[in-house]
Parts: sequence; structure tokens; C-alpha cells
Amino acid sequence: MSCNPANGLRQQVAELILVRASGYLNDRQRRYPLWELSNAELQRCLCQGVGGVILLGGGAVELQQRTLMLRRWSNRRLLICADVEEGVGQRFEGASWLVPPLALGRLYQNHPKQALLLAERYGHCIGSQAHRCGLNWVLGPVCDINNNPANPVINVRAWGEDSASVSALVTAFQRGLSTTGVLSCAKHFPGHGDTTSDSHLGLPVLPHTRDRLKEVELLPFREAIAAGVDSVMTAHLLLPELDSDHPASLSKAILTDLLRVDLDFDGLIVTDALVMEAVAMRYGAAEAAVLAFEAGADLILMPADTDAAITGLCDAFRSGRFSQARLQASLQRRHRALERVMKPLQTMPPITSDAEQALEQELITTCLHITPNAGIDIARGINLVRVDSVSPCSPFYGIAPALRLPELQGFQSLVIHGQGVSPWQSQDDSPLALNRLGEGPVLLQLFLRGNPFRGQQDSREPWSAAVRQLQRLNRLAGLVIYGSPYIWDELKTALKPGIPAAYSPGQMPEAQQQVLIALFNNAKTTTAYANFTS
Amino acid sequence: MSCNPANGLRQQVAELILVRASGYLNDRQRRYPLWELSNAELQRCLCQGVGGVILLGGGAVELQQRTLMLRRWSNRRLLICADVEEGVGQRFEGASWLVPPLALGRLYQNHPKQALLLAERYGHCIGSQAHRCGLNWVLGPVCDINNNPANPVINVRAWGEDSASVSALVTAFQRGLSTTGVLSCAKHFPGHGDTTSDSHLGLPVLPHTRDRLKEVELLPFREAIAAGVDSVMTAHLLLPELDSDHPASLSKAILTDLLRVDLDFDGLIVTDALVMEAVAMRYGAAEAAVLAFEAGADLILMPADTDAAITGLCDAFRSGRFSQARLQASLQRRHRALERVMKPLQTMPPITSDAEQALEQELITTCLHITPNAGIDIARGINLVRVDSVSPCSPFYGIAPALRLPELQGFQSLVIHGQGVSPWQSQDDSPLALNRLGEGPVLLQLFLRGNPFRGQQDSREPWSAAVRQLQRLNRLAGLVIYGSPYIWDELKTALKPGIPAAYSPGQMPEAQQQVLIALFNNAKTTTAYANFTS
Repeated sequence: MSCNPANGLRQQVAELILVRASGYLNDRQRRYPLWELSNAELQRCLCQGVGGVILLGGGAVELQQRTLMLRRWSNRRLLICADVEEGVGQRFEGASWLVPPLALGRLYQNHPKQALLLAERYGHCIGSQAHRCGLNWVLGPVCDINNNPANPVINVRAWGEDSASVSALVTAFQRGLSTTGVLSCAKHFPGHGDTTSDSHLGLPVLPHTRDRLKEVELLPFREAIAAGVDSVMTAHLLLPELDSDHPASLSKAILTDLLRVDLDFDGLIVTDALVMEAVAMRYGAAEAAVLAFEAGADLILMPADTDAAITGLCDAFRSGRFSQARLQASLQRRHRALERVMKPLQTMPPITSDAEQALEQELITTCLHITPNAGIDIARGINLVRVDSVSPCSPFYGIAPALRLPELQGFQSLVIHGQGVSPWQSQDDSPLALNRLGEGPVLLQLFLRGNPFRGQQDSREPWSAAVRQLQRLNRLAGLVIYGSPYIWDELKTALKPGIPAAYSPGQMPEAQQQVLIALFNNAKTTTAYANFTS
Repeated sequence: MSCNPANGLRQQVAELILVRASGYLNDRQRRYPLWELSNAELQRCLCQGVGGVILLGGGAVELQQRTLMLRRWSNRRLLICADVEEGVGQRFEGASWLVPPLALGRLYQNHPKQALLLAERYGHCIGSQAHRCGLNWVLGPVCDINNNPANPVINVRAWGEDSASVSALVTAFQRGLSTTGVLSCAKHFPGHGDTTSDSHLGLPVLPHTRDRLKEVELLPFREAIAAGVDSVMTAHLLLPELDSDHPASLSKAILTDLLRVDLDFDGLIVTDALVMEAVAMRYGAAEAAVLAFEAGADLILMPADTDAAITGLCDAFRSGRFSQARLQASLQRRHRALERVMKPLQTMPPITSDAEQALEQELITTCLHITPNAGIDIARGINLVRVDSVSPCSPFYGIAPALRLPELQGFQSLVIHGQGVSPWQSQDDSPLALNRLGEGPVLLQLFLRGNPFRGQQDSREPWSAAVRQLQRLNRLAGLVIYGSPYIWDELKTALKPGIPAAYSPGQMPEAQQQVLIALFNNAKTTTAYANFTS
């Protein structure tokens, strides 16, 4: 393809734009073709000077080639980033997928030293693997405080539920990441933890005053900045006490007055994705980009229309709405950030190290809760598994111990999900339609972590009442929650003493295996499973 | 890892063994760790001289690196094969996944010239992509005649339902493949089409005489051999008329007397996987390998225990049970086959070409059946999708038009599968438990193709009665079958005139899209979907 680079101003402006692409090499493997540019579009954008790409989906090995390909297509140094706040394996299969940060936030309450050491290794693991895959910018740590358990979008992604633990842990994370030669990103400024709606679907409103923010939400950002975080990502939130017109991402009061001036941050400010409904439903693509830049952002992430955003920004410069100095300042910040990153590898080293795989295991083991009851010694029953089907990397690939291990014990698996035949009936105290499930004791395994895009869908399922119903009938063989500590907190109060139960923050196969080997703590299962997997 | 190569005889014997490994680089991504060697085990085997690897699972881009890695680990030229009889994309995502061969077998009945040209391009597409991925041996074409529609394991994998069409089409396939520099394999000798049980789960018995085989089952093999097929894979079938003791894979009467002598085949004979229940439940690992070799096989695929198989074969040579000449003959055949393959690439070219992607589309379009009724013009309803969850590459990756397109029209998707809450109730003429499905018209989409390992599970579902039930209630909005022509043949007889319906042999997203755009043939859906995917 021939490259027709844009003119001077247009090229400079394009450098401030980040477009989204799939991690797969082949167009038709794109999981979200609506949001992910085709290779032809991507080449055209890069040729015109677009300065960054956010990648999602694909295997980590393919990602190594994908990032090399993007660099070949571009005539400048690219920022290549991804939402890998829980490990590169959260988005790119084959790399490490670590327990969600909130698990360490909980650990910090009783074992702060251990939690801090783990958070530092966590950051180091992500940065190292990102670099091996050709990414040079990790969109983490999340600096939001999950002070609202009903939060559908932050939830277990936060490093804690109070400002002290989040501040301490994100600082440790940043310390670990900073030695790996990739950039970090504190998000979502000024704090997205205290919301009950999802900015992917609408615009949440936060009533907090500037004083309240300074006392609570801003503290982790302040600490992350002090620890050298390279960039800050804005939140699509309306904070009427600070700016009654514009969401934070487009607000001068928040990006310039609060972040640049008050918090004295001179690194890169990047918007959250401007295609998200919270912004896109209110502003055109050009308008949103111009307002974000005017508010103080340096980089514009995923404008709803790349060309329109660039044109809008160029017009604003030509008309004198923005000064050349402002443009140069943002370009300079981008340039300085790129000077800090390690050179991309030309080789394709193994994605994970033994030490990193050991860290994955240690995090799982450390953050696991297993009730001190006798194990399950039932030979038959129903293994009722609720899967949270939106995970970008399924915890059900491979041997899926959550299915196989109970099956080896004689249980029959029944896998339910948000789009399947309903297991529910309309009886408040007996919500499970047991006639649809079959006979025998029920081992209940719930993979629920409060993902974005779901709204309140999961939390509406009456699992507490279902647990009580099964116990009344003496049919609850055991309970495992993988994901949300809030669902665990709620359900464990419904549990009768003596019911084997466990909570794992992580959903990965290794966590399933550890939980179930402990619950079926008999020689038969352990041996059968060892033979099965060896 | 240091390499301790085996002694002379052991090395030579090892060269005749094929072990199974995952296409993923990382051990923990193995989907079937019970059958797929870990990297440490694999390196040890290759170091001892094991001469071949069969790969399964992973992305096509990762496969390019995986095959390079295997070659680095080995000190000899390796045979690297895969079951990619329907396209490399059937097993390795990102490559082309073509419609199942039986679709061309049906096309051949009315349009033989077109079917033959497509079969030739089919073979060329597979061979070319295999070579780009580093495979040098395609385990196809299937030469079985699917003369038993209840066949659970061959079914749509066959190139036809009579010997003439299978013979013609596999010859065309071989012609296309032969120019690509990779080896081919006619399977499963002497013909696995006329069975109703699955040799993955038990040993099927075929009552046919030698004369009957010569008149029917052997013809496609004879033609494939005449066309230059490089190898023949044996079937795990008992044919008491030819050998009352041993299954074909271990039978001298079948491999030597029939294949080597009568059919005059001097290429490689390879067993089907010896770990399959049909063999493994009756014979030890060493015994099975020795019997197969004694019967006339050159290469031993997936012995239940690699070391035991090698030791067993070495003992048989040392004891004089096998001659040195016999060993040299098999090694020579392997050597001659490798001389015919093109050198592996050191670069990693794009997996698919534009012409190959066009072939995928042409096959889908050519093999599609859409009833000549008006389209679906209902704005709401239930999109009831039965998925066949064992496909190694899910047709539900990405945008899954089977879900998204009806959803854009106002339908709500309900996805059912073999391990979910049952949609059935025990009433013969009203088998669907409609109270579990919700209100409104039902668009029924069935992804059923009669996969191996499932036994008769799918065909037991009373879909004909369900179609009648929905029609009686005026609730059938439409019907689509993706996969088995037999299910389509059966269900279309139950359809009332005027019900929009379609059959697609392929299950891939592109096939879903073509079917549904045709069924919802209104401007609204087409525009909405174009906007959605662009």
C-alpha cells in the first residue's frame, strides 16, 4: 500500500491520537470489528501519522508479531498500549493472568508487608511481559478506590476499598513496573470507584466536592504521581461540584486546574476511550476530541471517528482556538515518555518466566479462602457452574478443572450462563427451578466478578435465596465463588456450618484446581485428577 | 536441556513413532494435557530420535513458531502433521476453515465439474496453508464413503455417499494438494463409512466381505493411490470376514495382504492413534505398536506410552520377530516421503491469501440452501441457538452473526448446549419446554454436525417433534441447520410451506452471515449489520 502522509499540522495532530486494533494479525479474527480498525484502515492511519494503538484480543505469541507489524507500518515511534491491568494474560492468552488487584487490597488489611511485596512483583511481571510482547505502555494501575461495592465497572479491578491501601499498593505496583522499560497509567482520574453505573453504557454522576476528592479519591493519584507514574487516564464521569457541564474527560476544571495545576502532574494525560457511550452519546467525534484537548488532555484515545477528530483538532489550531505552544507541549510530553521506554525487541522470547508462573501460583494460594470444614465426600450430584461469559480470556479453556474435577468424582456438570435456558422460577424462597437441574446434591460454583458492560445483570440473580433453598432440602454439597468478594461476603452469611465452601478472587484454571482439590480432599479425586492431567 | 540420544536401534525405531503435542508454545495452554506431551517430554522424545509430531490446537500464527521450535529441538528431519482435512483453520484459528467435504459430495451429484474444480482448489488451499504454517503432512483426504447416515465419526467429513463421487473428489483433492510440497494421507483404510459406532469410544465391527470391500469401500483408496497419495492411515475397525482377531490397524491380512499386495501401495502406512479406546482398551502400548508394525504399518501414531512402544519394537527386532530388512524398508519409505516435501520456511508469511479467502466464500455460497420463501419479517422473538460445543475452533468467536444479527432485528438469543439447563420436557408431541424459553416466535438455529466423541447424544434430541410443536402453535419464525445434511433432510420434511429455512454445511461466521442476511432480507437488518461490523 502506498503511503500518502498528511501535511505538517495534520501529522502532528495525528501523533496525539490512539486508535484501537485487534491483537490478531488477520482482519476476520477481530472480535469487535465495530471498534477495531481493519488492517487497511490501520495502515492508512499509521501512514498519516497516528501515534498510538491500543490492542485487544489474540494470543500473546501472535501479539509479538502484531506489534512488530505495527512498527513496520509506522514511520514514527509508536505508543502501543493495552488494558492489561491484571496481567498481559488478561487480554492475550498465554501470558500471565494474575488475581484481580482487590485480592491484594483485602490481603493488605492483615498482611500489609506481604501485600506490598506481591504488588511490586505484580507490576514487574506485567511490565516485563508487556515488553516481551512489544507493548510499551501498560494502562494500569487502576487508582480508583472501590468504596462502592455495587460498582459495576471498577469493583475487583481496584487495589482496595480505602485510600490508604490503594495508595500504598499502587505505589508498590508502580515501583515494580517502573524498572521494566514500559510506561504506566494511573486511572481513572479523578476516581471512578464510587459509582453505581457503568460509563461504557451511560454517564455516571458523582456528587463529591473538591474537598471530598482531596481527602479520599485523589490520594492514590497523588501517590502514583509521586512514585513516577508516566500517564493519567481520565474518567467519563460528571462531577457537578467541579464542572456542571462536562464530564471529567472533557473538563478543564478537572484536567488542567485539578490535575495539571493542583496535583502538579506534568506527564501525559490521556482520555479514556471517547467512543464510550458516556461521551459518544453527547458529543460528536470532532467535538469530543477538541473539548478533551482544550480541557488539558495530551492524547485522545479511540475517537468515534479518527479522521473527524484529526480534522476537528486541525481546524481548532488553524482558527487560533489552540496555540502552537499547546500542541508542542503535548508532543513534547509524548516525546519525553517515549524516551523513557526500552527499545522494542526484534526477537520473540518466551512470554513467561518460571518466576512469573510461580508468582501466579503464589497469588492464587495466598488469596484463597477455604472454609475449615471437612471436604465433600459425595460420589454423585450436580456440578452447577454459573459462568460469566464476557471474560475476554475464558477461564474455561483447556482442562477446566471446575468441570473436569467434579466429573471425575461422579458429578454431572450443568453450565449456565446469561444467555441460556433459565434455571430460575418465580418463587422468592425457592428461586431455583430444581426440576430443570436434576436429582441429587448440588455443588454450586459461581464465576461472577462484576464485569463492565453487564449492568446489574448478575447481581439480580437470587443466589442467596438459592443457597438457602438448597440447604433447606439438604442438597447443597458445596459452594465456590470465583471473582467478587462481595458475592462471597453475602453468600457466606447464608451458609450453614459444615458446608464446604471456598472463595477465590481469580477465575483461572489453576485457581479452580487448587480450590477443588482442597474441597474434594480425598485420595481418589487427587489421584484421578493427577492421572487425568499428567 | 541436554540431549542423551538413544542407541542405534532405539533411534531408528523412534523415527517411526509420531507423538502428539499441542500447537501452543506454552505447556499450560494445552487443551488436552492427558494426550499432549509437555515441552520437556517432547524435547526428550525428539532428542531420542522420535520422527514425527501431530499437532492440535492454537492459532495458525503461533503454529508457525511452534513448528520452527520443534525442528530446532530435533536432530533429524521431522514429519509434522495435523488433522486439517477441512482446512488448516479447522484446528488452527486464523487459517481457512472450509465447508465440510460432504457438501461437495452433494454438489457433485448435479454439478460434477464444478465440484471437482472446487475439490482441487480445496486441496491446494490446505496444502499451501499447511506449508506456510510449517506442517509438511496433511492427514487427508478422508477416503471413507459415508454410506451410513448414522455414522457418528465420519459423516460430513466424507467426500460423498457413494464410491464414484468419493473417488472422483479425493482424486481432485489430491491433485490440488500434490503441487504444494506437503504430504497427503488417505484414511481410514479399508473404509470407516459404514459404521454406527465411534472408534474413539469402542471398536466398531464391519461385516463386509473382501468382495464387498473391493466393490465399494476400497475404490476411493485405489483411486487416491493411483493419484499419488503419499500415505494411508488405518482404521480401528474389526472386519471379521478378513481378520477375526485383530482390528484393521493391527491386521496383517488388511495392511499387508490387502493394502500392500492387492492394492500395490508402496507409500507410508500409518496407524490411526493407538491411544484410541478401540485399540487401547484391548492391547498394551508395546503390544499394539508391535502388532501394528507386524501387520505392515510403517509409522505408529500416538502410542499410549511412547517409551514402552519403542522398547517393545526394539525387543521384537532383537528377538528376531522382525527382520532388519523390514525396519529398513519402513525407514526408507519415511525417507522417500520426506524427499518429496518442500523445505520448511524460515520466514512467517501471512497465513491466508486473498484467493483462499475467496475460495472459502465461494464454497459457502455454492453449498448453501435457502428455501424460496419470503424472509422473516418479525421484529421480536426468541433466537434459539443449539451449539455443538465440541468444535475445536468455535464458530462463535468474533461477532457470531448467528447471535448478533437476530439481536439487531429485535430477537433475544438463547444459547443451549449439551451441558446446559435442559429445554426439553417429557411429552412426545410437545418436547420443548416452552415455559423455559419465553414468549414469542422462535427462530431455530441448530449447529449440529455429528462430531466424534459424542456418541448419539445429538441425534437423540427430538428436533423434528420440536419443529412440529412450534408450527402447531404458529411460533416457528424460521429454521437454520449448520452442519449435518441428514438433520436438514429430516427436519425439512417436517416444515410447513412458507416457513423461511436454510441449510449451510459450514458453521463458520461467514456462513451464518450469508444465511441470516438472506432470511432477514430487509433493508433494516442489512444496514444495521453493515454498520455494526464495519
